Amino acid sequence: MTKSRLEPQTGTAFELKRGQTLRVIDLEGEQVADLTAFARSDPSEWLSSGRSIDYANTIYLTKGHILYSNRSRPMFTILEDDVGRHDFLLTPCSRETFEIIYKNTDPHPSCFENLWRNLAEFEIAPDAISTTLNIFMNVEVASDGTLKILPPRSQAGDALTLRAEQDLIVGLTACSAALSNNGSFKPIGYEITDPA
Amino acid sequence: MTKSRLEPQTGTAFELKRGQTLRVIDLEGEQVADLTAFARSDPSEWLSSGRSIDYANTIYLTKGHILYSNRSRPMFTILEDDVGRHDFLLTPCSRETFEIIYKNTDPHPSCFENLWRNLAEFEIAPDAISTTLNIFMNVEVASDGTLKILPPRSQAGDALTLRAEQDLIVGLTACSAALSNNGSFKPIGYEITDPA
Repeated sequence: MTKSRLEPQTGTAFELKRGQTLRVIDLEGEQVADLTAFARSDPSEWLSSGRSIDYANTIYLTKGHILYSNRSRPMFTILEDDVGRHDFLLTPCSRETFEIIYKNTDPHPSCFENLWRNLAEFEIAPDAISTTLNIFMNVEVASDGTLKILPPRSQAGDALTLRAEQDLIVGLTACSAALSNNGSFKPIGYEITDPA
Repeated sequence: MTKSRLEPQTGTAFELKRGQTLRVIDLEGEQVADLTAFARSDPSEWLSSGRSIDYANTIYLTKGHILYSNRSRPMFTILEDDVGRHDFLLTPCSRETFEIIYKNTDPHPSCFENLWRNLAEFEIAPDAISTTLNIFMNVEVASDGTLKILPPRSQAGDALTLRAEQDLIVGLTACSAALSNNGSFKPIGYEITDPA
């Protein structure tokens, strides 16, 4: 098993082989981690929130659910989930997110930039990044459709464990949007384990 | 103004110039139309449900809301909306949708196929098609996150009017998924109007 740590407001990209598990850990609590993935064999196949939500028939994917690609092929299975509340509706925060939502035009780290800069190593273009699985992000949908972004329900040590169902390129961040993380920026841990 | 009609379970693709409006009409009632779009100048810029939902802070986009691209640039503004209930969570129905959700492996028309076959004329690949705006589709999210697909609220003649905010390539269908259309397949009308 390899153990790694993402410092606050950073990201990474790495390969995950079919059968390996990825455990994403909220080390200190109330910290979101954005996840995306591409097929190793052909990165024009990508993690699809729309397919995954449609087939699971819920916006809150948890233990037992499959995360599908745009080609409707399984990319991950969720094996364990300590929290049960993750967002799969919203895109990674970007420079424009801060401008449009926060009215903040100052330079600011973002999940989008932390993803594309790291995924560039695998020749994945920024335009290829779609809606991410925002692990630990707590978004509620009111009956009129309005979204409420609440503090993550995750406490220190809580984790989400995913098994890769095909060889993947994975992007992962420790999220940089204050509102998503109850106002502070913390690290994210992750562990990769080979099949038993 | 040009008036067109999509026969049941068909689709089309066309150019829409900045400032033109597209009016999508449910001619007979309770019929969904899937919409996607790409920037004419660079089709690697695409209509993003995640960006649009994030910036509107609601899953139910309606009059006054802007539909954004993955690059956070406006693609459409919703000018008029007779219905006020459209889905922006789910992907266009595909062969795999019918297999996974309906357990139906027979050949079956699908929005996904109707989109990519028509968008091929503009050299847009099937993998480029993301979550569509599913006009008139009525999806409710329960407080536990479960989705309920209800009959469309649209009646004969109800329409959604969108103004193009940049030159676009648009894909549009009359949806082929029985559940989305209260069990029947009907035509969709659409009108393109130049700016006054």
